[in-house]
Amino acid sequence: MTARTAIVVGVGAQQGLGAALCRRFAAQGYHVLVAGRTEAKLNKVVATIRAAGGSAEAVRTDATREADVLRLFDRGMSPGDGRAPVDLIVSNPGNNQRLDFREVSVETFEDFWRAGCLSGFLVGREAARRLVPFGRGTVIFTGASASLRGKPGFAHFAAAKAGLRAIAQSMAREYGPFGLHVAHVIIDGGIDGERLHSRFPQLVQERGENGLLSTEAIAEAYWQLHCQHPSAWTQELDLRPFKEQF
Amino acid sequence: MTARTAIVVGVGAQQGLGAALCRRFAAQGYHVLVAGRTEAKLNKVVATIRAAGGSAEAVRTDATREADVLRLFDRGMSPGDGRAPVDLIVSNPGNNQRLDFREVSVETFEDFWRAGCLSGFLVGREAARRLVPFGRGTVIFTGASASLRGKPGFAHFAAAKAGLRAIAQSMAREYGPFGLHVAHVIIDGGIDGERLHSRFPQLVQERGENGLLSTEAIAEAYWQLHCQHPSAWTQELDLRPFKEQF
Amino acid sequence: MTARTAIVVGVGAQQGLGAALCRRFAAQGYHVLVAGRTEAKLNKVVATIRAAGGSAEAVRTDATREADVLRLFDRGMSPGDGRAPVDLIVSNPGNNQRLDFREVSVETFEDFWRAGCLSGFLVGREAARRLVPFGRGTVIFTGASASLRGKPGFAHFAAAKAGLRAIAQSMAREYGPFGLHVAHVIIDGGIDGERLHSRFPQLVQERGENGLLSTEAIAEAYWQLHCQHPSAWTQELDLRPFKEQF
Amino acid sequence: MTARTAIVVGVGAQQGLGAALCRRFAAQGYHVLVAGRTEAKLNKVVATIRAAGGSAEAVRTDATREADVLRLFDRGMSPGDGRAPVDLIVSNPGNNQRLDFREVSVETFEDFWRAGCLSGFLVGREAARRLVPFGRGTVIFTGASASLRGKPGFAHFAAAKAGLRAIAQSMAREYGPFGLHVAHVIIDGGIDGERLHSRFPQLVQERGENGLLSTEAIAEAYWQLHCQHPSAWTQELDLRPFKEQF
Repeated sequence: MTARTAIVVGVGAQQGLGAALCRRFAAQGYHVLVAGRTEAKLNKVVATIRAAGGSAEAVRTDATREADVLRLFDRGMSPGDGRAPVDLIVSNPGNNQRLDFREVSVETFEDFWRAGCLSGFLVGREAARRLVPFGRGTVIFTGASASLRGKPGFAHFAAAKAGLRAIAQSMAREYGPFGLHVAHVIIDGGIDGERLHSRFPQLVQERGENGLLSTEAIAEAYWQLHCQHPSAWTQELDLRPFKEQF
Repeated sequence: MTARTAIVVGVGAQQGLGAALCRRFAAQGYHVLVAGRTEAKLNKVVATIRAAGGSAEAVRTDATREADVLRLFDRGMSPGDGRAPVDLIVSNPGNNQRLDFREVSVETFEDFWRAGCLSGFLVGREAARRLVPFGRGTVIFTGASASLRGKPGFAHFAAAKAGLRAIAQSMAREYGPFGLHVAHVIIDGGIDGERLHSRFPQLVQERGENGLLSTEAIAEAYWQLHCQHPSAWTQELDLRPFKEQF
Repeated sequence: MTARTAIVVGVGAQQGLGAALCRRFAAQGYHVLVAGRTEAKLNKVVATIRAAGGSAEAVRTDATREADVLRLFDRGMSPGDGRAPVDLIVSNPGNNQRLDFREVSVETFEDFWRAGCLSGFLVGREAARRLVPFGRGTVIFTGASASLRGKPGFAHFAAAKAGLRAIAQSMAREYGPFGLHVAHVIIDGGIDGERLHSRFPQLVQERGENGLLSTEAIAEAYWQLHCQHPSAWTQELDLRPFKEQF
Repeated sequence: MTARTAIVVGVGAQQGLGAALCRRFAAQGYHVLVAGRTEAKLNKVVATIRAAGGSAEAVRTDATREADVLRLFDRGMSPGDGRAPVDLIVSNPGNNQRLDFREVSVETFEDFWRAGCLSGFLVGREAARRLVPFGRGTVIFTGASASLRGKPGFAHFAAAKAGLRAIAQSMAREYGPFGLHVAHVIIDGGIDGERLHSRFPQLVQERGENGLLSTEAIAEAYWQLHCQHPSAWTQELDLRPFKEQF
């Protein structure tokens, strides 16, 4: 077999972005390491991919823990069955929440940083360590509008996402000349996934058709980033619904 | 016939970006209006497309003249042979030059503005006028690193390109909700085209393999922008060679 | 006499920013060249300054005309009465208006560019020509939130202001090392001047106390920029009312 | 007595920025809480201020510890001797270092975040809690060029500083309308302080006169921010030596 290997970190529900990325990469012939915290969810994503004829495996991973990330990349470098080692990695940390700044505890502020920034550092550093010697590969970080600007009620989230973006920029400038394509995607708008449907059904209705980002459409953009020719790489792009105010 | 129609403004030599965009769109089945100032060059591009089985026609256009742009869009809206009207437009103005700021004449400053900014206004305004009623279409503006920041010796160029970017942003925010996808592409690096090869052959050699942007690679990125799903549109992305310092 | 000389371009009504800048500089002992298109307005500003014991003269100037700007700087370099030549220059172009993009004529688009961008080029280029040989001086450009981003209905304005900002950046990078301090000020909010009071009295009322930018407060910020030590120069700052959303 | 109270967090050596800020505020009649980790250094700064006739006291503070920051603000709200409570706060975290990204340990990455971002969160949150009820006050955060962009070897630093900037933006947008002026200062260049003189004497020599930022000049800019009229507040400004490339 000559299948290449991809790692997607931050996979949750089937309707989420992480799962859509896994399916997209598998459909291109990738063997996908489906990484996230909840094994039952990972297994469902793997099952769906296999049912469609693709190749995937679940790797339970808390991306805020160094040992988990090291183990995930160990697997990615030796994926078995004659597969080629990982050359496509997405760091796709989740969660967001509006909070009164004056009520944010140190624990909460730190938790958001661990999930939104430290996890990206761990995944990015490991990607650099493992892929730079090969002189090729793609690392994509999922950002948000908060990556660019802090808004009331989102200091904790913006601080983490702005930090993640800085990591992506540093990596891109440092490792691009070594053949590692590091990109940062600004998701500016609500994602048409489980979270909004279950928690904010009214918002979903109000936005109407194509008013929320389709996870398949986002996954397509990530895939195109990976396919870019080394003479014309994108470091950052934004994605938003056509009707989004910005 | 059901072929759709594209307009590419700012087409010059075969090796340039404009020509590569025309070929790319034609290869996707588009009928392409090849627009630029020098008829002989346009004709060569058209001939190449036709030789490859595609459909194109030359429309001599000075994009800094309103009448020329109006005429070009008249043709784009009624492309004949049962083709669908234009729904893909690229404004790809050329030229750049380092100049001593204190020596820049009013004429030169204005010329750069006409070529780099007014032409984009004319094309963008016409695109909005013609496409918004249909509720769909893509308009892509070619930017540069100077679109983001002014550097010594490039005030005249940066002033034009920054202005063009502002037009693209205004249009995106205004017409996105009406179904018009307006994108701006930051080309950050030298393009592997005729200009650098003829004028700066040493630079071309120094940059080495993939050290200059391939026009085909850029054209691919433009095409992918056009293909984006309306729930996940990109307003701006950068493109640069993997080894480019930035 | 040892008074130094300042030039303020874009002076209109007494309540406007240009007039406030003139008064502020005169209060610091500067001889001020009060430059604008309407002589009657200039004379009133001069009279006010003289009545307060300051020194000023009116120089009718259309800043979009090269000859006018050259003449203004000729006067600034030889201000008479033993005064030192100009070392403080503000380019403060006016006007703004929301327009339907599809209805903007070439003339209108060009007029906004002449008033908002070409005038800054002319003033900036002349400042560089005259001051760089002396190795000192300050040039301040008045920007707006549109300098940073294009919004619906303001493409014409944003294109001019973004271009002006690019000029300021280019100049700062090029001439800073030669001792010329070039700064760009983002005015983000309504100015508490004649224009809003006469045209939008309801807005003025709604904004309440300190809800619009005081021209004296802006002038103070400009003066502080001029006073900055060369080891710590500001290239860009924003100014907005404390209650402004941004 | 009617002296007001200021807090400066991150004070080290006499030649540093923190100490210069303390002296500047004391010279304006402020009682200054001199906060930092090393008591001996704080005491020297306090002694210098007192010798010049000013009022100050040392408050040993590790700004990465919540309890220390709470205690510092407790003191700031009840400064004794009839002084008015704190209305001017600077968060001025230190340290920077180039590191090979692939060699950065989790501990190091976290330490930089604690010093550069968490400390700002703690100071900023406490400032919001204590000052918003009074409807006035100024909070200034010290940023760096890394706040805006990540560069090779500085991902750890840029991630912290970009996060800090996001906090400052969120706070400014949220609390500006409540009378709290939150500003962020981009220090773009080397500071003419003890660190560079002791560690990089050659760099100091190379930069020449005014080639490094004078701490007094920076302190003046901070003071001017505090003095701004509420109708024209600055959220962000940059400071760099006149000869700095940028």
